[in-house]
Amino acid sequence: MKFCTQCTGELVFTIPPEDDRERYVCSRCGMVHYHNPRIITGCLATHEGAVLLCRRAIEPRKGFWTLPCGFLESGETIAEGAMRETREEACARVELQALYGIIDVPHISQIYMLYRGQLLDPTFAPGTESLETALFAEPDIPWRELAFPVMNLILEHFFAESKTGIFTLKTAKLDFSQRLRKARTDY
Amino acid sequence: MKFCTQCTGELVFTIPPEDDRERYVCSRCGMVHYHNPRIITGCLATHEGAVLLCRRAIEPRKGFWTLPCGFLESGETIAEGAMRETREEACARVELQALYGIIDVPHISQIYMLYRGQLLDPTFAPGTESLETALFAEPDIPWRELAFPVMNLILEHFFAESKTGIFTLKTAKLDFSQRLRKARTDY
Repeated sequence: MKFCTQCTGELVFTIPPEDDRERYVCSRCGMVHYHNPRIITGCLATHEGAVLLCRRAIEPRKGFWTLPCGFLESGETIAEGAMRETREEACARVELQALYGIIDVPHISQIYMLYRGQLLDPTFAPGTESLETALFAEPDIPWRELAFPVMNLILEHFFAESKTGIFTLKTAKLDFSQRLRKARTDY
Repeated sequence: MKFCTQCTGELVFTIPPEDDRERYVCSRCGMVHYHNPRIITGCLATHEGAVLLCRRAIEPRKGFWTLPCGFLESGETIAEGAMRETREEACARVELQALYGIIDVPHISQIYMLYRGQLLDPTFAPGTESLETALFAEPDIPWRELAFPVMNLILEHFFAESKTGIFTLKTAKLDFSQRLRKARTDY
């Protein structure tokens, strides 16, 4: 962020009048350019108890495994976004069952909102952002090759609950220190 | 959005290479300027069964009543944002009880995420963005003077559940036609 989108004036990172935090403010026209957290929507899609994962074809974390997920787009609901990402990244059609994870990742201003769903049929294939797609039963999950800590968190929650048959919405906060700790000790 | 934030080139609203929807793309350097939905976080805060509302001092819907809520800021969790908005708009301190409403409003690319909470003490006052703050028991809610349809929806849900004592997360989608219908018939 260097220049104003309205008048091309130079942006200054400063606290605007009547505000209490730093924003990008145009030094010419005064327009404030706000940044807000982004929602990442996705789906934990299953078939006969196994979970559909995608191996990422793009950075960050290229080559690592993830649930199909991505940034919520303007004009769509969280549920619509979850189905779209599953279609785009894994060429799979899914029936959503319930919102299953809301994970705050404040140090990178992201909110994950993940649904639980069932594949309508066991047909899937890598989309343009995936190298590979596959169904994994619990013993086969590539725990050390998951792309993001939020994937470990939601998959552990899912397999723990699968033993009870009762599924509940998981809410959690992941911060940078947890990310490092996880990376060092658990996996 | 007229000019590129990186090079001041003119923006064109077009589908970028390898994408499938229109974005603002710089005609000089090619940078894509993404827009994503924003989260509005807030709190349905109660004291002895009455709900804390704020009368808006700013547009849109100046003079109408709302739960304390506003855009989630970078670097904060949804819960932190709900407490901050309650403090800023109503000078009130609240203990959050549970996430209580997730309302998609896709036609304006907003996601409301509202907590249920209890005032730590019955002390409140208008913040800079409020004209007035007050506790309302159900018979006194200004139904025809609520600022946004999402407020009608969550307050109706809350008072219906208050009769049972069992509170559950409300998920819903509000679209433009519902907004018009509500405005014409119900209120």
